[in-house]
Amino acid sequence: MTYNTAKGTRDFLPLQTSRRTFIFETIKKVFNLHGFQNIETPAIENLATLNGKYGQEGDKLLFRILNSGNFLENIDLSQQNSSKELANKICDKGLRYDLTVPFARFVVNHFNDINLPFKRYQIQPVWRADRPQKGRYREFMQCDCDIIGSNSIVNEAELIEIIEEVFSALNLQVTIKVNNRKILAALAILIGKEDCLTDITIAIDKIEKIGLEKVLDELRTKDFTPSQIDTLKPFLVIEGSNEEKLSQLKDIFRDIEIGLKGIEEIEQMKDLISQEIEIDLTLARGLNYYTGMIFEVKSKEIAIGSLLGGGRYDNLTGIFGHAGISGVGISFGADRIYDCLDQLGRFDPKMEKSSDILFINFGFPYVKTCLQYAKRLRAENISCEVFPHEKQISVQTSYAAKKGISFVAYVGEDEIKSGNLTIKTMASGEQGKYSFEQLKTLLKQTNSQTNKTYELNNNCKD
Amino acid sequence: MTYNTAKGTRDFLPLQTSRRTFIFETIKKVFNLHGFQNIETPAIENLATLNGKYGQEGDKLLFRILNSGNFLENIDLSQQNSSKELANKICDKGLRYDLTVPFARFVVNHFNDINLPFKRYQIQPVWRADRPQKGRYREFMQCDCDIIGSNSIVNEAELIEIIEEVFSALNLQVTIKVNNRKILAALAILIGKEDCLTDITIAIDKIEKIGLEKVLDELRTKDFTPSQIDTLKPFLVIEGSNEEKLSQLKDIFRDIEIGLKGIEEIEQMKDLISQEIEIDLTLARGLNYYTGMIFEVKSKEIAIGSLLGGGRYDNLTGIFGHAGISGVGISFGADRIYDCLDQLGRFDPKMEKSSDILFINFGFPYVKTCLQYAKRLRAENISCEVFPHEKQISVQTSYAAKKGISFVAYVGEDEIKSGNLTIKTMASGEQGKYSFEQLKTLLKQTNSQTNKTYELNNNCKD
Repeated sequence: MTYNTAKGTRDFLPLQTSRRTFIFETIKKVFNLHGFQNIETPAIENLATLNGKYGQEGDKLLFRILNSGNFLENIDLSQQNSSKELANKICDKGLRYDLTVPFARFVVNHFNDINLPFKRYQIQPVWRADRPQKGRYREFMQCDCDIIGSNSIVNEAELIEIIEEVFSALNLQVTIKVNNRKILAALAILIGKEDCLTDITIAIDKIEKIGLEKVLDELRTKDFTPSQIDTLKPFLVIEGSNEEKLSQLKDIFRDIEIGLKGIEEIEQMKDLISQEIEIDLTLARGLNYYTGMIFEVKSKEIAIGSLLGGGRYDNLTGIFGHAGISGVGISFGADRIYDCLDQLGRFDPKMEKSSDILFINFGFPYVKTCLQYAKRLRAENISCEVFPHEKQISVQTSYAAKKGISFVAYVGEDEIKSGNLTIKTMASGEQGKYSFEQLKTLLKQTNSQTNKTYELNNNCKD
Repeated sequence: MTYNTAKGTRDFLPLQTSRRTFIFETIKKVFNLHGFQNIETPAIENLATLNGKYGQEGDKLLFRILNSGNFLENIDLSQQNSSKELANKICDKGLRYDLTVPFARFVVNHFNDINLPFKRYQIQPVWRADRPQKGRYREFMQCDCDIIGSNSIVNEAELIEIIEEVFSALNLQVTIKVNNRKILAALAILIGKEDCLTDITIAIDKIEKIGLEKVLDELRTKDFTPSQIDTLKPFLVIEGSNEEKLSQLKDIFRDIEIGLKGIEEIEQMKDLISQEIEIDLTLARGLNYYTGMIFEVKSKEIAIGSLLGGGRYDNLTGIFGHAGISGVGISFGADRIYDCLDQLGRFDPKMEKSSDILFINFGFPYVKTCLQYAKRLRAENISCEVFPHEKQISVQTSYAAKKGISFVAYVGEDEIKSGNLTIKTMASGEQGKYSFEQLKTLLKQTNSQTNKTYELNNNCKD
């Protein structure tokens, strides 16, 4: 019998974990520089909180947790006829599906403890019972920041800046795509199907994946008349620069107020930012709760799904009984960012954390002296380890080599007598005698050089 | 309808999250200084991996995840007669119950990718369907470090050092209790019930909670004869200094090899460490997989459950088909450490992360200049924010005050003309004119002072 990770989930080895930490810390640093504060919500939520918030598709993808104990008590199994019905009776809890809905619940629950406008970030895993495939996992990390309690476009401008700062720190070339749900709403009005905004949004969302013609076919099956589709089509093929797009839109929506409002928001935001953005009128972002600006980030360098999504929602907390709080947020797809950096070979090769020095173990009583030296070095913020058992020196140095440790120390009879340690530099094989103070200096210098190299690599753009 | 967090789970507000992060980072730093490497395993594991690893009690506390889709397919509901039976048919996956069993699976799955002795740490949440009560949650964090592939007592000595370094950095006074499972095994031999080591261990484990007499009563119900209990009792009441305890033990176990081996291990470990430890012969640690030294940490300052547990296990990976790898590890109970620091008032009051400065929003076009200043400050690692919408100044400064922001900046007509900003120090109410360079210097100085204060508080012992 073999014991593997559950389908769609992954173990992370030390190197992968260091790389992931680098991504999270980079994002976190930018969030902090913008005054966002970190919160956390539980992995487990009551299903009452999650059900119905992600559309029918989303409901199917929720992981449900079986009630504990005698969960069949009071249930007449002969009365059940579907899995769905039974699931609702034997499961009260589910796993977090995204960070936005739990955040909305959080805001309603803690409304008296937060200070509006509230800028929060949250970096936690989410779970979806999706069919696993390349680059899509059942357990993956989301890195969200949201500002709620302010409907000013300044917030959108700030998010664009955050997007630029994060991807620039990660050394990834990206396109920031924007659109506005008000423009899509105006489109629904224009073709006389105001009530079908969701159908239009879902259809448009698929243009990139399945192409314009197939999307139009799909709309035909959904009761859209040929004349409605004729009205829709020119909108979907608008091309040109951002300015050209906006000017064509102004013409199309000249009599539709909500459309003009959407255009105005894009223009105001553009005026506040220095970053390059691309207005993409086919950008829709599936989730229904968006009501204003929407965002998406794509890699300029490799073909991979979106690296970020987000937008403004005017009434997310309404579903939990607290209406009228406008918010806007973005969510970085850390797993896809990882895949992107990995494919492009952009991770610093020295990213795996290791020790600075290994003390070779010559058995008792020498190991005791090694432990004391190690303790003194750690007090100086130098990472070090003592090989735990006596083995051939070659085995011990090979351990150091595999783990990327730069120096090994020999402490035997001579060294204890003289008070000097024998230090071998792993890269060159050179050996020398060092007093403890000299060793400290050597290790600190090496450390600060490594950090410098790391920062250089980290800040240098292609 | 109200929407709360699920029973036994918690939201964390910014202040709580900062405090938790401080605990995790402190522990992480010590792990890194000792050359431990970070790994992660998924929250969801196949139940085949989890079932039967935590005893009957543990099995009951596993959270099971309902299979997705039509989970009743191929199940004849009329044939089911218990919740337990049905659960096994409709759930293949469960939530991680601890970090040790997933680590054992990890080691077996990635045996070719790791370098023995392997020193890993893991800081992740675990879930148990326990009855929630004060200080006991259904979702809580474990911070584990383990060394596998070495049976040397040097590893135990290193763990003791880690324990001391972490609690000292957290500014908590603790007692490190140790015992050895080999001594408990010898005890089982001594009373002629070698096969009842588990019963003895479980009973002894309860002495602290229910007292010696009740434990003896429990053993009587489990087929222990009066003479066996008479043999056991003197062992349980051994008192005195560590040396006195060891000397009495040597006498009791003079003919029982495994007992003498346990005593020897304690003595060897004591010889390698400088930390004060307490040999506690009633310490048993419930989990069956321990085979050698066991550890527990209690607060010296307040009455609260153990802050850490751990021990040596000689065959943990055996359950996953890879026998013969010895390991030893400890697990910090971060949630209890939090409660401890909180009750003792030991958290630094300045721990909540916030911005260094807030730009007051006077509307367009001034806000655009504010955004540009903010961007330049962030490039200097200064955290700042621009109030997102125009409101009375009093509302905006009150936001700054509530969020603990030290300075606010006014950028209006005059400031744009002169190129100087008006800066208000929130604490004193003083206002002054600053060039951008002067502002930068002011904020950097304030920042480095805050960091210094923080480090001082952090390093100072009571």
